Amino acid sequence: MPVGTYGAVRTVSPDEVKATGAKIILGNTYHLLLRPGHDLIQRRGGLHRFMRWDGAILTDSGGFQVFSLAKFRRVGDDAVSFRSHLDGSEIVLTPEKSVEIQEALGSDIAMCFDECIAHDVDRAYAQAATERTHRWARRCKEAHRREDQALFGICQGGLFADMRRASAETLAEMDFPGYGIGGLSIGEEKARMYELLEHSTAALPATKPRYLMGVGSPEDLVEGVARGVDMFDCVLATRIARNGALFTPTGRLNVKNAACREDEGPIEDGCDCYACRGFSLAYLHHLYRVEETFGLRLATIHNLRFLARFMVRMREAIVQGTFERFRKDFLASYRMTNQEVRHEQKAKWLASHQEATET
Amino acid sequence: MPVGTYGAVRTVSPDEVKATGAKIILGNTYHLLLRPGHDLIQRRGGLHRFMRWDGAILTDSGGFQVFSLAKFRRVGDDAVSFRSHLDGSEIVLTPEKSVEIQEALGSDIAMCFDECIAHDVDRAYAQAATERTHRWARRCKEAHRREDQALFGICQGGLFADMRRASAETLAEMDFPGYGIGGLSIGEEKARMYELLEHSTAALPATKPRYLMGVGSPEDLVEGVARGVDMFDCVLATRIARNGALFTPTGRLNVKNAACREDEGPIEDGCDCYACRGFSLAYLHHLYRVEETFGLRLATIHNLRFLARFMVRMREAIVQGTFERFRKDFLASYRMTNQEVRHEQKAKWLASHQEATET
Repeated sequence: MPVGTYGAVRTVSPDEVKATGAKIILGNTYHLLLRPGHDLIQRRGGLHRFMRWDGAILTDSGGFQVFSLAKFRRVGDDAVSFRSHLDGSEIVLTPEKSVEIQEALGSDIAMCFDECIAHDVDRAYAQAATERTHRWARRCKEAHRREDQALFGICQGGLFADMRRASAETLAEMDFPGYGIGGLSIGEEKARMYELLEHSTAALPATKPRYLMGVGSPEDLVEGVARGVDMFDCVLATRIARNGALFTPTGRLNVKNAACREDEGPIEDGCDCYACRGFSLAYLHHLYRVEETFGLRLATIHNLRFLARFMVRMREAIVQGTFERFRKDFLASYRMTNQEVRHEQKAKWLASHQEATET
Repeated sequence: MPVGTYGAVRTVSPDEVKATGAKIILGNTYHLLLRPGHDLIQRRGGLHRFMRWDGAILTDSGGFQVFSLAKFRRVGDDAVSFRSHLDGSEIVLTPEKSVEIQEALGSDIAMCFDECIAHDVDRAYAQAATERTHRWARRCKEAHRREDQALFGICQGGLFADMRRASAETLAEMDFPGYGIGGLSIGEEKARMYELLEHSTAALPATKPRYLMGVGSPEDLVEGVARGVDMFDCVLATRIARNGALFTPTGRLNVKNAACREDEGPIEDGCDCYACRGFSLAYLHHLYRVEETFGLRLATIHNLRFLARFMVRMREAIVQGTFERFRKDFLASYRMTNQEVRHEQKAKWLASHQEATET
């Protein structure tokens, strides 16, 4: 799911998002609550109509942003109060309020309000927070009214394997139509994240969608799918695009590198995105150099299309029974990334040295 | 002509520029010389191919930017030397060099290198500069080789009516396929500009295109057309769009004004641009508020489409013999601008006062 924080996937139009193959995008409840306000969006006919997106929308609960962005946070059993990171105004969120906001936004999938657990807390705190998330999930389910909106539960459990499994079991018993897996990719090692993920997915029903929240690098997608994950969201693809980093099957390519300066080829050979079909790396390099926003757009389109094609190829491989091979082949070629980066850094150094002596 | 300073019309794709109805865009020789360099663009197959624009391109001579942007300028009879506004490197431009660069860029229309005369110079300096521009025009014509590129002359004459007329006569005698009218809209009163323009166009052949350089507000377009001008270029439409100012038949509307916050309607009723067909003012207002570049794009598309439709309507009115009526009606309704602005300022003040008391 491309992330459309403020009712727009940064730099691209809804038509361009659709053309990348994305069928569902994510909207951030916390951000939309602050600007322009869920009440305004409701008056304008809901988020789909406001931003003119006719695909599906999933809204997060606001919980993660409360813990990552907001200031002066106080967590109680009933509610979380905090101050807006924009103007310092005080806001109180409860499970019921989160559901109310998401119903006003009119997303197709709403998420239960949860507490995201920091990576450095002790077992006792993680246990208490996970139990609070379970109680909040029950309250969300109770409060939820819209029949045209699915409410997903979120399992937590910190970085403790048994607690992860128990949280997934508890949520599964509540019988949600789908499940988010929260609180991973918050600083732990990749191998540890994959192991913990396995404990969550093992206890979630295979017949319902499992959504690994806030994870979106190609290597994490393939490892997530290998462990039974169906859905992902992350700002990674769009954020690194704005920094000039482009997904390719062999790793990330930075278009700002001088090696791209006269490259007549596309970002990725064989890619069918708008950027690769029409524009050279040389032109894209130039657009970044002169700080032209059209360049950010082309890079964003490519990265979103790369991930959409990647997911389609994984789905096909699963159907054909060749997923394990796909995974192995991909990870083998994607390991070239580090070499690629080193090569690029060298090329960059050489080029900057060269540029300094040019007129 | 929309202005594509650095090989891109800011915030929009070549396809979007085309969809606004524009058939020709302007590229800035001075900017492209600095970044990415005309030699690189030539190696990449010329400016059309580099930026993937299959319409026509006019390049300016670099003269105006040398006088408006560059630093430490020294004007000699043979050449102008200056320092880049980006890195301070020294650059020398001659009429021959300007033609060489424009031939390398491969534009459809190149402009003769000219000296843009400041509004505060005395008659003696204006006379000397205008004569220099005439000598440079002859040298450009002599140096010009590409048969697939038209070279337009530029008449100057400062803010002196007789000198304007004499400059246009001198250029007309040199028999260029088209003529630029330079050095206007540099700080003089509008009425004075229109009067001076008349002296230029009066002496230019009616059968060849006349191009009023660097002028692009709706009121100036209609007054320019009334005086026989066929072509215009200006960054105004795209620059004010990025500041939130949108052309409408009654004047400029600023989308950042709080009055737009809940406006479900389009920027302009009846406009067929991508922005007006799909998105509300309320959404556009929100995009500006959260600093999303997609908003800049929508506003740019609208302003370019507004001017393209405006030119088409003027052409039709000329053919139908109703241009004078069109001009009168337009100026009568467009005079509402000042009232509109006052109304908006009031609305803005009221709204900001209201917002300050909202949560």
